[in-house]
Amino acid sequence: MFNKLCIIGVGLIGGSIAKAARQQGLAKTIVGFGRAQDEENLRTAQQLGVIDGYSLDLATAVAQADCVLIATPVGSVQAIFKQLHPLWSAETLYTDVGSTKVSVIAAAQTVFGYVPSNFIPAHPIAGAERSGVEASVDDLFMDKRLIITPVADTDAQGVLKITAFWQAMGAIVSEMEAHHHDTVLAATSHLPHLLAFALVDLLGRKDEQVDIFKYAAGGFKDFTRIASSDPTMWLDISLANKQAIIPLLAQLRAELEKVERLLAEEQTEALFAIFSHAKKARQRFLECHNTLAEKASLL
Amino acid sequence: MFNKLCIIGVGLIGGSIAKAARQQGLAKTIVGFGRAQDEENLRTAQQLGVIDGYSLDLATAVAQADCVLIATPVGSVQAIFKQLHPLWSAETLYTDVGSTKVSVIAAAQTVFGYVPSNFIPAHPIAGAERSGVEASVDDLFMDKRLIITPVADTDAQGVLKITAFWQAMGAIVSEMEAHHHDTVLAATSHLPHLLAFALVDLLGRKDEQVDIFKYAAGGFKDFTRIASSDPTMWLDISLANKQAIIPLLAQLRAELEKVERLLAEEQTEALFAIFSHAKKARQRFLECHNTLAEKASLL
Repeated sequence: MFNKLCIIGVGLIGGSIAKAARQQGLAKTIVGFGRAQDEENLRTAQQLGVIDGYSLDLATAVAQADCVLIATPVGSVQAIFKQLHPLWSAETLYTDVGSTKVSVIAAAQTVFGYVPSNFIPAHPIAGAERSGVEASVDDLFMDKRLIITPVADTDAQGVLKITAFWQAMGAIVSEMEAHHHDTVLAATSHLPHLLAFALVDLLGRKDEQVDIFKYAAGGFKDFTRIASSDPTMWLDISLANKQAIIPLLAQLRAELEKVERLLAEEQTEALFAIFSHAKKARQRFLECHNTLAEKASLL
Repeated sequence: MFNKLCIIGVGLIGGSIAKAARQQGLAKTIVGFGRAQDEENLRTAQQLGVIDGYSLDLATAVAQADCVLIATPVGSVQAIFKQLHPLWSAETLYTDVGSTKVSVIAAAQTVFGYVPSNFIPAHPIAGAERSGVEASVDDLFMDKRLIITPVADTDAQGVLKITAFWQAMGAIVSEMEAHHHDTVLAATSHLPHLLAFALVDLLGRKDEQVDIFKYAAGGFKDFTRIASSDPTMWLDISLANKQAIIPLLAQLRAELEKVERLLAEEQTEALFAIFSHAKKARQRFLECHNTLAEKASLL
């Protein structure tokens, strides 16, 4: 599919793309780019055979690449666009994997004065609490969703090519408007992460924390798993999507205030309605996912 | 250990105790008790061989039992004590499995005017989203914690016997003061459940809920698993422990308000401190549990 794929930022996501692309024969050569402080990681990636080589010089790394994929934290994307600006080629397809899309598109707009038509904004909904190239795997995107958020000027052929690239790695690709993407992801991913961080931070500051952690069961372990995620990455995502996250935090606080009041007043029917509505809503969510898993297994 | 064990309420927990006790040879005969509307469930339990028999008459069910175990929802315990009162025997050991302990002890105090010394309040920290005797398994308590919350008058020999009973079923038994138990469980179990119910209720009422559920990933599935718990049981537990839960809900709302404000003001250092403190606290929790699992595997 590509002669030379250049991956900017070879961490868990970038490394997993390299492994999956190699396994599926999607690129003849895969090179990495990083900053001076990333050299050890890039050397590891090369030693592990994840990438064929790397350069700390962006011009060298992207030279003759027919696809440049930005897999750095969303907070760094604008700086990457600035470095890419003088090197930008109409012959090359550019894409990214940022968890927020409005901020990435805005960064392109700021740097170029417009959103280049050969930049295809994309987001694979996959990840793990672990990070770094050592944690990368070749099936991270198998049966996972990938969302492309084109703007009006985005090249349709480029969208098709990036769609085919991700489908070849096992992803289920959809298109969506960037604002809608950010609203949906704020609800399903960003809010739960902030909630898990807030809860574990609160409990970890309590005097009884030793007993709290000692007597917690499996439910607590699952519920708080995402509080083990990388703080730097989540700081980045939270700031990049704060417009969508802040109203949700306010709505959740209002919902918790309601639960607290109903409990204090022992309003059993209203509380039961909330609990059973939630149970039913989660059932719909599971059905939605079972269908997805079934569809995936039929492909 | 017991000649006749009478289990009041043969659901997931009561049924799993019956299965584990039978497998370990802890009771010669196991009988169930329930209300008229529970008869189909009791008949199923007998057909499955979980219990040897059952009675809808409490006097018949508990006659000659050397252990009576109450495994009904905590909200029903006071009514059970009332029915047991005229049948109470000094020769019998009574115990329960309620998720809240202050309310159970208060129910005994209300019915008897004192807490009978042969009532041993206990709580196995085990469970599942599923319920009913069909979901019961013989290893539900293996390597799980069980907390006994004796009062000043509780018979020490009775505590030893109930300890041995649970240890034989694989549980790791500790003793704790009832108020401390309720404070700790409010933090590790009750608050996370209310939080999961509130979050999924909120998202399930949004216009974008179809997309929210469609594009949610594994983290959301784990985070919301406990929102699939039984609403009736959790209404019961929430009301029984509202004294401990309400202050925690208020503290969590304050913490979320802080996160919201820090995000709005882009106070990156303070946000990073919350996220990384949470990550470290969860690491301590995991280490605590790994040690427990290691200990359990060494036993």
